[in-house]
Amino acid sequence: MKCNDTLTGIDRRALVSGLALLPVAGALTLTPALAQADPLASWNDGAAKKAILDFVRLTVDRASPQFVAEEERIATFDQDGTLWVEHPLYTQVVYCLDRVRDVVVQRPELKKFESFKTVLSGSREAIAKLSLHELEQILIATLTGMSVDSFAAESAKWLAAAKHPRWDRLYTELTYQPMLEVLNYLRANAYKTYIVTGGGQDFVRGYSQRVYGIPPEQVVGTAGGTKFIRDTDGKPFLMKEPKLLLNDDKAGKPEGIHLMIGRRPRAAFGNSIGDRDMLEYTGAGDGRRLMMLVLHDDAQREYAYGPARGLPDTRVGTFTPELDAEAKKNGWTVISMKGDWKRIFAFD
Amino acid sequence: MKCNDTLTGIDRRALVSGLALLPVAGALTLTPALAQADPLASWNDGAAKKAILDFVRLTVDRASPQFVAEEERIATFDQDGTLWVEHPLYTQVVYCLDRVRDVVVQRPELKKFESFKTVLSGSREAIAKLSLHELEQILIATLTGMSVDSFAAESAKWLAAAKHPRWDRLYTELTYQPMLEVLNYLRANAYKTYIVTGGGQDFVRGYSQRVYGIPPEQVVGTAGGTKFIRDTDGKPFLMKEPKLLLNDDKAGKPEGIHLMIGRRPRAAFGNSIGDRDMLEYTGAGDGRRLMMLVLHDDAQREYAYGPARGLPDTRVGTFTPELDAEAKKNGWTVISMKGDWKRIFAFD
Repeated sequence: MKCNDTLTGIDRRALVSGLALLPVAGALTLTPALAQADPLASWNDGAAKKAILDFVRLTVDRASPQFVAEEERIATFDQDGTLWVEHPLYTQVVYCLDRVRDVVVQRPELKKFESFKTVLSGSREAIAKLSLHELEQILIATLTGMSVDSFAAESAKWLAAAKHPRWDRLYTELTYQPMLEVLNYLRANAYKTYIVTGGGQDFVRGYSQRVYGIPPEQVVGTAGGTKFIRDTDGKPFLMKEPKLLLNDDKAGKPEGIHLMIGRRPRAAFGNSIGDRDMLEYTGAGDGRRLMMLVLHDDAQREYAYGPARGLPDTRVGTFTPELDAEAKKNGWTVISMKGDWKRIFAFD
Repeated sequence: MKCNDTLTGIDRRALVSGLALLPVAGALTLTPALAQADPLASWNDGAAKKAILDFVRLTVDRASPQFVAEEERIATFDQDGTLWVEHPLYTQVVYCLDRVRDVVVQRPELKKFESFKTVLSGSREAIAKLSLHELEQILIATLTGMSVDSFAAESAKWLAAAKHPRWDRLYTELTYQPMLEVLNYLRANAYKTYIVTGGGQDFVRGYSQRVYGIPPEQVVGTAGGTKFIRDTDGKPFLMKEPKLLLNDDKAGKPEGIHLMIGRRPRAAFGNSIGDRDMLEYTGAGDGRRLMMLVLHDDAQREYAYGPARGLPDTRVGTFTPELDAEAKKNGWTVISMKGDWKRIFAFD
C-alpha cells in the first residue's frame, strides 16, 4: 500500500493545495463533491429555494436534457431591493444629496437653484417632493463634471463612512445574506454573475467586487458618457459628461444586457416593475431559465412594501399588482423575505 | 520504481486529463512548467517578441515589483489590421455592400438613392468614391431595422461563405497567427483579452469566440442602440435601431473601454492612428504596461501601407508619421510584420 499512501498522501495534498489556487468555478467543476453541504444555508426549505437548486442541478449536469454550456451560463441581478436595501432612498441618491454641500462650496452659483436650496435646507419632506427635473439637476452636479478617478475616490470615501439611519451600519453591510449565497452558488457552478441596475454604473462598480464578488466589468448600470481629454501636462484622463448613454431600467435592462453582455441571461433576479422586461427577455429564450422576484413582505426584519398583495404602498412602482399577475402567468418564482429567508443580513 | 511508474503513468495522466477540463488560465497557473516551450512560435526573436515575454514575466511573477493582480490583467486588441486583414476594405464594409442586393429586394424604394445605385452598379471605382454620408445610408440599411437574432443569422451565413479576393479564403481564416499566439499566451497567464474595435460590436461578437477565443461579452465595438419590443404574439425581442451609442474609434476607444470594462488595460495592441488614444490611455496608468503597434510592411505576404516610413500610402490615416513619432516618444513597440513574424497566417 506504499503507492496508495503516496497517492493519498503527498500527491493528493499537492493536488488539493494546487486546486486552492484555482478560480472557484474551476475547482468546483472538477470536484462537485467538495461543494458545501447546503450552499443556500440562509434559505428556508420551500418553493423558492427548490427553484434555485433545481435550476442549477438541471443546467450543469451534462446528462440533463436541459444542460447549459459553461459559456452560456449568465445570471443577472438587479441591485436595489434585490441584493441590498433600497429603503427609504436608493443609496446612490443619498450619496448625491450628501455631496451637495461640498459641490456648492466649489460652485456657489448653484445655491441660486431651488433644487439646491431644498437639499441644503435638510428638510426630508421638501426633499421628497423634488420634481424629477430638480432631482436631475442634483444628479448632474454630483455625478458628472469630474474625472472618473475623482468620482471613484469621492464615492469610495463616502461609502466607507455613511451609515443607514435604521441600522446605523454602512450601506455596504446591508446586502441580503441569502442573495449573496445565490451569487456564490451560481458562480461555484460556473455561472457568470452580473449586476444589472438602474443605479449608476460607475458608482456600483466601485464596490461590486468587494461587496458581491462581482468585478466591475460585470456591472451593467445607468451610464453616462465620458470624454477622453488631456490635462495641462498632456496627461490623458476621462471626464464624466452629463450625457445619458444607457437608462438601465425597464426596457433599458434587456437593451443594456445586449449592449454590455451580448447574450441572453439564463437566470434573472429582480424585485420591481423596473425588472419586468429583464425577466421577460430572459424567459423568452429556449431551454431552462430561472426568473425570480424578491417580495418585501417583512416589516419587522426589513420593510414591507408592495403595492401588490396588500403590502403598504410606501414606494411607488416596485412590486405592483401588474407584476404580481405577470409572475403568476409566466411561472416566475416570488421570494418571500418573511417566509423564505432564515436571516436577512450577515450580521443578523 | 513502481511508485514512480504509477506517478508518471496513470496518475500523471489522470492529473493532466483533469487539468484539460479546467480553464486554461487556471491550469497554467498551477503548473507553469507545463506551458509549451515557445508560446510565441511564429515570432522571430527580436525586440517585439521580447517586449511581450518580458511584460508577461514581470507582471505575473508574485516576486516581481511589477506584479499585477489577476483581476487587473486586462489586455485590449484592435481588430482590423491588428488581428486580421483589413485590406482592401474592412470585412464588415464588404458585408454591408454584399447585403445591398438583398435589402433592395425587400425595400425597392432604396434603389432611388444614388448610394444604392452606386453599390448595385458593382463598380469598385465608384464605390470607393462614396461619401461618408452615402456610406452611412448603406450601413444603416444593412445593419439596423432588423432583430438582433436576424442580424446574427444573416452575418453568420455570409461569413461562412464569403471569401477574400486575394487569398480565396474565408475572411475568418485571415487572422494573424502570431497575434492568435499572443492572445493565447496572455490568457494562459490569466489576462482577460478584449477586442476593442471600430467595427460593429454585434458583427464581431458573432464570431469572436470561434475565431479568437474571445467571448461576446469581451468585445467592445461601435454600437448602435436596440429597442426592446414585442411581436404580434407578445414575444419580446430586440430590434436594432439606427442610433449610435458608441463610436469606438480614436477617443471613443478609451471611452468605450470605460463604459464596457471599467478598468484601464495593462496591455493594448493596435495598428493605426485610431488606436492612439487607447494606447495613450493604457500607458497613462501606473506600473508595468505594454503598448504595441502592428506595422504593415510586408507587401509580399500581406500588404505594405503607412503612410509613415515611406510605405505606400494606399489607405488614409492608419500608420501615420504622427503615430510613428508618438510611438518613439512613448516607447511603444512597433511590430514589423516583415521582420517579426515567421508566418502571417495559420495556413502559411
